[in-house]
Amino acid sequence: MRTLKIIKIGGNIIDDTIALNAFLSDFAKLKGPKILVHGGGKLATKLANQMGVEVKMTNGRRITDADTLGIITMVYAGKISKNIVAKLQAEQCNAIGFSGADGNSIVSVKRPVNNIDFGFVGDVDKVNIETLDILLKNKVTPVFCAITHDENGQLFNTNADTIASELAIGFANAYNTELYYCFEKNGVLKDINDEASVIESINTETYQTLINDGVIADGMLPKLNNCFHAIKNKVEKVCIGKPNMLFTTNTKYTTIQN
Amino acid sequence: MRTLKIIKIGGNIIDDTIALNAFLSDFAKLKGPKILVHGGGKLATKLANQMGVEVKMTNGRRITDADTLGIITMVYAGKISKNIVAKLQAEQCNAIGFSGADGNSIVSVKRPVNNIDFGFVGDVDKVNIETLDILLKNKVTPVFCAITHDENGQLFNTNADTIASELAIGFANAYNTELYYCFEKNGVLKDINDEASVIESINTETYQTLINDGVIADGMLPKLNNCFHAIKNKVEKVCIGKPNMLFTTNTKYTTIQN
Repeated sequence: MRTLKIIKIGGNIIDDTIALNAFLSDFAKLKGPKILVHGGGKLATKLANQMGVEVKMTNGRRITDADTLGIITMVYAGKISKNIVAKLQAEQCNAIGFSGADGNSIVSVKRPVNNIDFGFVGDVDKVNIETLDILLKNKVTPVFCAITHDENGQLFNTNADTIASELAIGFANAYNTELYYCFEKNGVLKDINDEASVIESINTETYQTLINDGVIADGMLPKLNNCFHAIKNKVEKVCIGKPNMLFTTNTKYTTIQN
Repeated sequence: MRTLKIIKIGGNIIDDTIALNAFLSDFAKLKGPKILVHGGGKLATKLANQMGVEVKMTNGRRITDADTLGIITMVYAGKISKNIVAKLQAEQCNAIGFSGADGNSIVSVKRPVNNIDFGFVGDVDKVNIETLDILLKNKVTPVFCAITHDENGQLFNTNADTIASELAIGFANAYNTELYYCFEKNGVLKDINDEASVIESINTETYQTLINDGVIADGMLPKLNNCFHAIKNKVEKVCIGKPNMLFTTNTKYTTIQN
């Protein structure tokens, strides 16, 4: 089977034009089929402030109301996606911007209301690879934003890390899928203040120990849960680190093992 | 050769949710390969007002500065495009939202500065049908917004009527292309106040007479110039009217003849 790389970049790169351009230039040169998944960065919050739309929180968690969904759709699927696609085209990478609605590629269901109603937040139900695979076989690179749909005309806000892991799982029977989470650190760090303290490999067992010891906490927990969800569902390789883990060989990063 | 329908809808449908949903439901049922091109409607102006971005005019014509381009990209390629795509998916029409950057499908050059610098406005230079045609052959329906790119990473604002005619011309060697401009009137009217006064056929000769007589003026001029540009460049059929010209047989509309 061929290898398919699914690469997720976060807000820290999106918000830094120079870093983003450098990344896209390197990404464009990567050989073989690949999919880019991008987060949103600070632009959506900035636009919400400009529009006077207040950020709604419940129990400390952000709610996606109709106004916020509109803003996210404009910023993620509009401004960020199309600028990334245009820059990739300038680097001779034939890209197409996707939401989960495009090609009916990612179907989600509204997150069930228990204590909190998150509004227009969708949990991934199904990945349809047919249309995407036709494009990959024709050397087209899909670029995904963090938006899905419910097949009934409703768009949903869906976490970009989750979109990346679900795409990797969705393609796992058709390709050797490799999933790369790029972020601002060298990987999962033993000491959050020491970039040299990269934990080079984490498996299910050591993961539990790292949680118990408080080494992995906060935002790293959902990211690592996405990693383990992928590695347990036929994804061949799952890595976390700075983008240069993809482009150079002398870089340390964290690999997730089953 | 197979027939490819290229259908452009304007702001009056985009701004009317009920009319838009009804149109998309009918459009989804149209047999054979098809491309939808949509205008912008009033949403971009509304967002500009909310953001405090002023509409810049020179000699009565709108200028697309960087802020305006950002707004257009968010509204056209984000909110409008993705909502149309999600609604088409709900109608079992497998759509993908496109700008000219996606699939490198429409390349434009900045409009030359003579007396007026229009800013980020692009005139179409080239249509690349390869990626689009792969999708059409796989029963995918591209949905185009009025944004193009220059292959160097710059997005441009490009008139949606022009995008529709250039796509129709670009596909004219591969398909029998039919171009339909849907707008709020039954067609080109002899008397603008009488919807029954549809001119059923206009050719190059009668066009000139209608201009001289002042029957065709203002906004209809660029629309009809796009029509004649298409019909003179191998497009098989060019029609102007209400959307129901596509879905019913007992409707009057205007057909452009060479």
